[in-house]
Amino acid sequence: MILIGERINGMFKDIRRAIQQGNPEPIREWARRQEAAGADFLDLNVGPAVEDRVPAMKWLVEIVQEVSDVPLCLDSTDYNAIEEGLKLCKRPAMINSVPAEMPKMERVIPMAKEHGAYCIGLAMNDKGIPKNSDDRLALAMELVATADAYGLPMDHLLIDPLILPAYVAQDHGPEVLETIRQVKLLASPAPKTVVGLSNVSQKCVDRSLVNRTFLVMAMACGLDAAIVDVNDDDLVDAVATARILLNQDVYAESYLKVYKNRGVR
Amino acid sequence: MILIGERINGMFKDIRRAIQQGNPEPIREWARRQEAAGADFLDLNVGPAVEDRVPAMKWLVEIVQEVSDVPLCLDSTDYNAIEEGLKLCKRPAMINSVPAEMPKMERVIPMAKEHGAYCIGLAMNDKGIPKNSDDRLALAMELVATADAYGLPMDHLLIDPLILPAYVAQDHGPEVLETIRQVKLLASPAPKTVVGLSNVSQKCVDRSLVNRTFLVMAMACGLDAAIVDVNDDDLVDAVATARILLNQDVYAESYLKVYKNRGVR
Repeated sequence: MILIGERINGMFKDIRRAIQQGNPEPIREWARRQEAAGADFLDLNVGPAVEDRVPAMKWLVEIVQEVSDVPLCLDSTDYNAIEEGLKLCKRPAMINSVPAEMPKMERVIPMAKEHGAYCIGLAMNDKGIPKNSDDRLALAMELVATADAYGLPMDHLLIDPLILPAYVAQDHGPEVLETIRQVKLLASPAPKTVVGLSNVSQKCVDRSLVNRTFLVMAMACGLDAAIVDVNDDDLVDAVATARILLNQDVYAESYLKVYKNRGVR
Repeated sequence: MILIGERINGMFKDIRRAIQQGNPEPIREWARRQEAAGADFLDLNVGPAVEDRVPAMKWLVEIVQEVSDVPLCLDSTDYNAIEEGLKLCKRPAMINSVPAEMPKMERVIPMAKEHGAYCIGLAMNDKGIPKNSDDRLALAMELVATADAYGLPMDHLLIDPLILPAYVAQDHGPEVLETIRQVKLLASPAPKTVVGLSNVSQKCVDRSLVNRTFLVMAMACGLDAAIVDVNDDDLVDAVATARILLNQDVYAESYLKVYKNRGVR
């Protein structure tokens, strides 16, 4: 399971303020904390409040790499910001994200190929997010075909079926799980799957419970990666336990501790 | 999700002692507690220490029905004990269980039909528990065919794929999940599926975590019922949350409380 730490995002007040003030310390601190919690990637998103995203993204990439060796996931709808950020990445990165529409795919997917980056492809287009699994899969197929056309290795494409908040769009839950299951049948080798987990629990009472319950269900359907709060210990324990029960890690009495400590490099 | 309370079982010391001493109070207490926690059925098992199981089972059925209206799940390898117990049940009961072998199936399945009972069929025979999903499904198919032959309604048959403890038989986990998924394809209408959940966590460090993680994964694969510790609040919260995310219950801020209180009749 690839855990992508969600915390360095201008959506959070402390990060927004740090970016606005050019103060690297809160960002470094979250890089260290997420690395210690076992993040496999660190998502970097300058947030909606920043006007010029290119220098802000470059700054985030540089200061995070000063304190952490964890690969980066560059998260923006501004593809110039992603491209300039990728040029600074010391390790193969991840692009978050591109929808299943032209000309965006032909801008982003070759960029992923060129930089040896993973690329998250969203099961949506300019008409929005489909209501059911079949329509999500049709969009996933467009991402697969485009990745194939541009020579992006299929295991570098991560399809995000787009989970919506349970409190407003409950009917999407089973459709997303079915999409995760069936994406594996679209190509051989198969693309990977990813979810932006915290979205499912927006405005729910016990967000952590909703998040980890959905994540474990998605893992049972074959999910490969998730953008999550890696500092939620209950979530990471649930992931470690699901991996044991899916026979992906060997059971030992200390498995919970071992799994959490995998991030201490 | 049908939750079958596991606690009235001679495997537990307090129940064994109560049966041996003919003391109904601990049994009544667990009937009340499990009913309050939302059990849909109460499993009754006299345990291995009792020599004559027929009177012990009859006694359990009678004293539990004095304090609870929850349907009963008669759990024994002694089919005479089950049969005599069934005769006393005031509501349609469940039989736990019959393996996929003759002459046991032809003894138990007609009994289920006659009493309007549900029947748990185990994906095992005299050769033991299969290692993989395909062999489990072959045994499930024998149960389906026999149920069909004797006219047991297919939704009264619950296939138990038999989960083993993760600490000794980790490779069975994914096979059991795959079996749960595919049992639904064996007949139309499909049989139901059930697991004896606590077995998965035998000798594990954090049993509750292992139990609820497996249960949620199995629910994502279509599980209908489970024999569980219904007094494990974390487990019941996870079930309630999985039901929301599978769009089986309507989300409300109070959903956790509502789900737990469903047992207060």
